[in-house]
Amino acid sequence: MRVGVLTGGGDCPGLNAVIRAIVRKGVQEYGYDFTGFRDGWRGPLEGVTVPLSIPVVRGILPRGGTILGSSRTNPFDAEYAGQGVRRIRDSLATYGIDSLITIGGEDTLGVAATLSDEYGIPCVGVPKTIDNDLSGTDYTFGFDTAVGIATEAIDRLHTTAESHMRVLVVEVMGRHAGWIALHSGLAGGANVILIPEQRFDTDQVCEWVTSRFRASYAPIVVVAEGAAPATGGMILKDDSRDSFGHVRLSGVGEWLAKEIERRTGKEARTTVLGHVQRGGTPSAFDRWLATRFGLHAIDAVHEGVSGVMVALRGTDIVRLPISEATARLKTVDPALYAEAGVFFG
Amino acid sequence: MRVGVLTGGGDCPGLNAVIRAIVRKGVQEYGYDFTGFRDGWRGPLEGVTVPLSIPVVRGILPRGGTILGSSRTNPFDAEYAGQGVRRIRDSLATYGIDSLITIGGEDTLGVAATLSDEYGIPCVGVPKTIDNDLSGTDYTFGFDTAVGIATEAIDRLHTTAESHMRVLVVEVMGRHAGWIALHSGLAGGANVILIPEQRFDTDQVCEWVTSRFRASYAPIVVVAEGAAPATGGMILKDDSRDSFGHVRLSGVGEWLAKEIERRTGKEARTTVLGHVQRGGTPSAFDRWLATRFGLHAIDAVHEGVSGVMVALRGTDIVRLPISEATARLKTVDPALYAEAGVFFG
Amino acid sequence: MRVGVLTGGGDCPGLNAVIRAIVRKGVQEYGYDFTGFRDGWRGPLEGVTVPLSIPVVRGILPRGGTILGSSRTNPFDAEYAGQGVRRIRDSLATYGIDSLITIGGEDTLGVAATLSDEYGIPCVGVPKTIDNDLSGTDYTFGFDTAVGIATEAIDRLHTTAESHMRVLVVEVMGRHAGWIALHSGLAGGANVILIPEQRFDTDQVCEWVTSRFRASYAPIVVVAEGAAPATGGMILKDDSRDSFGHVRLSGVGEWLAKEIERRTGKEARTTVLGHVQRGGTPSAFDRWLATRFGLHAIDAVHEGVSGVMVALRGTDIVRLPISEATARLKTVDPALYAEAGVFFG
Amino acid sequence: MRVGVLTGGGDCPGLNAVIRAIVRKGVQEYGYDFTGFRDGWRGPLEGVTVPLSIPVVRGILPRGGTILGSSRTNPFDAEYAGQGVRRIRDSLATYGIDSLITIGGEDTLGVAATLSDEYGIPCVGVPKTIDNDLSGTDYTFGFDTAVGIATEAIDRLHTTAESHMRVLVVEVMGRHAGWIALHSGLAGGANVILIPEQRFDTDQVCEWVTSRFRASYAPIVVVAEGAAPATGGMILKDDSRDSFGHVRLSGVGEWLAKEIERRTGKEARTTVLGHVQRGGTPSAFDRWLATRFGLHAIDAVHEGVSGVMVALRGTDIVRLPISEATARLKTVDPALYAEAGVFFG
Repeated sequence: MRVGVLTGGGDCPGLNAVIRAIVRKGVQEYGYDFTGFRDGWRGPLEGVTVPLSIPVVRGILPRGGTILGSSRTNPFDAEYAGQGVRRIRDSLATYGIDSLITIGGEDTLGVAATLSDEYGIPCVGVPKTIDNDLSGTDYTFGFDTAVGIATEAIDRLHTTAESHMRVLVVEVMGRHAGWIALHSGLAGGANVILIPEQRFDTDQVCEWVTSRFRASYAPIVVVAEGAAPATGGMILKDDSRDSFGHVRLSGVGEWLAKEIERRTGKEARTTVLGHVQRGGTPSAFDRWLATRFGLHAIDAVHEGVSGVMVALRGTDIVRLPISEATARLKTVDPALYAEAGVFFG
Repeated sequence: MRVGVLTGGGDCPGLNAVIRAIVRKGVQEYGYDFTGFRDGWRGPLEGVTVPLSIPVVRGILPRGGTILGSSRTNPFDAEYAGQGVRRIRDSLATYGIDSLITIGGEDTLGVAATLSDEYGIPCVGVPKTIDNDLSGTDYTFGFDTAVGIATEAIDRLHTTAESHMRVLVVEVMGRHAGWIALHSGLAGGANVILIPEQRFDTDQVCEWVTSRFRASYAPIVVVAEGAAPATGGMILKDDSRDSFGHVRLSGVGEWLAKEIERRTGKEARTTVLGHVQRGGTPSAFDRWLATRFGLHAIDAVHEGVSGVMVALRGTDIVRLPISEATARLKTVDPALYAEAGVFFG
Repeated sequence: MRVGVLTGGGDCPGLNAVIRAIVRKGVQEYGYDFTGFRDGWRGPLEGVTVPLSIPVVRGILPRGGTILGSSRTNPFDAEYAGQGVRRIRDSLATYGIDSLITIGGEDTLGVAATLSDEYGIPCVGVPKTIDNDLSGTDYTFGFDTAVGIATEAIDRLHTTAESHMRVLVVEVMGRHAGWIALHSGLAGGANVILIPEQRFDTDQVCEWVTSRFRASYAPIVVVAEGAAPATGGMILKDDSRDSFGHVRLSGVGEWLAKEIERRTGKEARTTVLGHVQRGGTPSAFDRWLATRFGLHAIDAVHEGVSGVMVALRGTDIVRLPISEATARLKTVDPALYAEAGVFFG
Repeated sequence: MRVGVLTGGGDCPGLNAVIRAIVRKGVQEYGYDFTGFRDGWRGPLEGVTVPLSIPVVRGILPRGGTILGSSRTNPFDAEYAGQGVRRIRDSLATYGIDSLITIGGEDTLGVAATLSDEYGIPCVGVPKTIDNDLSGTDYTFGFDTAVGIATEAIDRLHTTAESHMRVLVVEVMGRHAGWIALHSGLAGGANVILIPEQRFDTDQVCEWVTSRFRASYAPIVVVAEGAAPATGGMILKDDSRDSFGHVRLSGVGEWLAKEIERRTGKEARTTVLGHVQRGGTPSAFDRWLATRFGLHAIDAVHEGVSGVMVALRGTDIVRLPISEATARLKTVDPALYAEAGVFFG
């Protein structure tokens, strides 16, 4: 029995912990052999592999990123001209792969669901999204690490905001869902939290900012990169070009800081946390979750199931159809967001 | 409406976050007044109070410990000669307290349950135990922080173990339940994890240690302070006395390191993490959980319920009778412990 | 004897530690009284004070920022119409201040030097610059903290760079001096380090980037915010305006990432660390240095000297004329920068 | 030209950074080949080597410990029956080593000095001691990391001490010199700091403890493992044996906590930080220092010198005779210790 493993999509702390757990249990408990495919679906599509064994996975538990590399390659893209599935099937045959464990987000898992459900290729999924926006699982690994990093940054920004009595706008990850903003904003004691799920009223934001200053404190505004104002012409990434012809990038954080300055007359600064949120060693919680996901994924392979992914429910690891988990985005519930409102202003 | 708040038992990162959330929402949303009682049940018993208002709770979110102080004082102890309940009732009357929020572990909550169920004193509970051994809630705040600190220590100990090819035994908290040992051991990549729920076989431990050395790696053994060998005369805290007449303290970590040295001939060292596990700033997860517990506790007060505590189930905060939660210890399930076994040796 | 204390310029981890040490020793050892002036020179100019005593400074050692507030107000600015010195003198008389301890950078200390040397107002200086670019002292507090935060970010970015085999450009603080870039770049294992002291050759940077990829690794480029290319039209902050009329901000990091993409065809991303580098709890080194600076500053006051500042030389705290220290910027020595070159590419 | 490298004595964060810098510059700039010797002097004595090249040292910069292993083996020990030097000479000949870089403390460097000065074997030294007690250098790498870890622990212990109003005694490393205790005690805001250089008066310690409680704060006592009371029968490691015949270990921290309890009636707890202080990733400062030591050590080899070691003086790396640096222990100056006294009590 030989099992293939691949990691797709954006990298995420905990990927290596999943790989290690899969290999460790697969070899020791079930006597399996393993083949790693490089860079997500590119691996089986192009036939690029990496050896995978217990010595290879030693010491990778605390390391961020993925030893298998990652990419956003999709076998159903035009690039593969309808030959994607055939190429994957050929690769699996070439390497003698009996089952494939795919670790990834919506896209990577979506492919796995199709391969399993429509083409009968045995696939087991492990959900991965730093944004925590996959349905069916309470949390995904990487999220806790990202929230921890964002919270630590907010802690640091409080003191610099207070010393100069200025507004600090912190832009965190979250294009479609505000989980990182909500959790880190609450944990960091932010005075305003803005999420993509609910368009914000810039006047209201400015009122919260002003009210905070009235109490002689300096406000911290946490904004998810995907948040947007309810009205008005925010142009996040406009088409003005600089002297080199590069398209200019300007995120909501920068935009909002300028608006706050303009409307309140208070000095405002932006910090865009960016890629530091997704790199580096996973938190203890994420290592634990990733490890358990890996152990349960190889158990699923052992039991011969396909088209399912592992998921966290409370403290249990469960299985559910991949297609169900990828059917819709898990966004922040309005009631949950409202709960945080007591800390605004 | 005036609400009393107290924190009892061992301190735990997140207590201040609970207090802040209770006061913030209680004042802003419900217009309540607050009285803090000092040092757990000692506060209402002796009539020692602390002012509690929004200005008082500003800035305490990231701070460990509890601004209310804590103690293990119990109104049903002989010390109070059966007058404990009367004294509490008098204090509540004196300070005009309509409802009491008690934040604590088994003992503190047990008292609250009795006061509510048997004496009709309105009490709402917030569960607190760094050991995570309270039934009814998936997690308690403080636990994630403790696991994070223990994991970071294990990370550090790996490199020193490898450099000298010696065994490192890490004793972590957990008198009756092995949650911290299990989570930090898994997250830290320990080679042996020993928990109170299952007596260990010292020969088996030595075999795992030896097998790790055979693979040219140095073993890390994580042992909960409450773990004990299946057979043999380990005397954790014997009655030998030193030259000053002090009772000698020797924990299972120190004992085990010596046994490993004696039996395997390999050098072994012990690190007892101790109080650093329960102090300092809470992790982002714990701040989030503690804040939500606080918000839901004051909601419960607002709805006029008593004898209930808030609890985490999945990602929801629920309510359940305190008496139910304190009826039995939540220990590590044998199946969960077995899951970790693939990493031993 | 009453001593005034003020903190000026950008905030910096360690300011509170200096204040605490001054007050602690001043009160306990010398029996002095203290007056804090708010927001740098604005305090004595406008007569805004803060009480300063042992109870006030308790617990501030580990806290970033400054309890006295800060500003860039300068008594010699046109705003004060030549009345700045008189106003300061009046304030000192009003509050009965015998000597003033000024904690700040080039500007703040420059004012102190002038007040002491030209107007006979007793001033002792404590050097502060997160950029470490003040002459006369081996290090200033805050710098080690900033380097530590930048290094941790670089550590995290390595794993995300490797997983996607992309370039990561990290922009760190340092407008005129490359100390933070050099130290964090070396400590973080960066593949290119660019500093303001030496204009960079973008082609050479791209060669290093390409050579790193040839070795199958992903490059990290650390660039000080003040670094600039030797040739070519980089426009750091051009005058194009967005749809709201805001001037567009674009730093060297963003510019460089785009150039690298354009020239090498490799994907590149930028992270601008920004204000997180100057906020939050000081490192142990900075707390130690700041504490010693504070102790020695109050000693200088006690000995009746003026116009001097404390400075670190090796492991000793020495005194030197403020005017000497502020005469020129301490930049990175070319030989030291060359030393790091062996790690480029 | 082939250079041998070995690391001896206790492990220390930064050893790998030194090795990497040596190899990186030696290969790239000077075209040298390298041979690693395993486990300090045991390597050349027993002819045990490790390959050492640029690929081997990639990625080791942030890793604690030493990839070469370490030991306290000494060629002049009786075990080698006077044949130690001959065996080393034979090994160097066998492997074609032209010069040896020895990274270690007093013992390792002492051997290097003798080999160079008396036997004409080319040796260059790199000083290493986590305790910072080597003369001739302002700091050694590893020390800053240890101080950082101890300071973070003290930060955490403050909150748990305050919550329960109990004394916390923290035992840190430092058998003969109190540098770690002094620096971490000052940085952590300890209320008492005890060092080996000056025997302490237990009554005085108890007075400081009591005075702290009078101010309504809980005291933290930082004690170096080598500190001892001026009078009285402290028996650090007495000869009482437990039921297994193991000698009982009891350090000064545990002893002191009991004495404080006995004399002041206040509850006291001990935390012995132990091996966590010397493991794990080095601080940015230590990576910088270790890297520079490595670069300058290979420069020294290149210039053909022997019997010297590199050292930090201010911000410069200098060279000095090894024999000079190992002649005496660098202990805490009484004046420096007195400076800290203002914070006691």
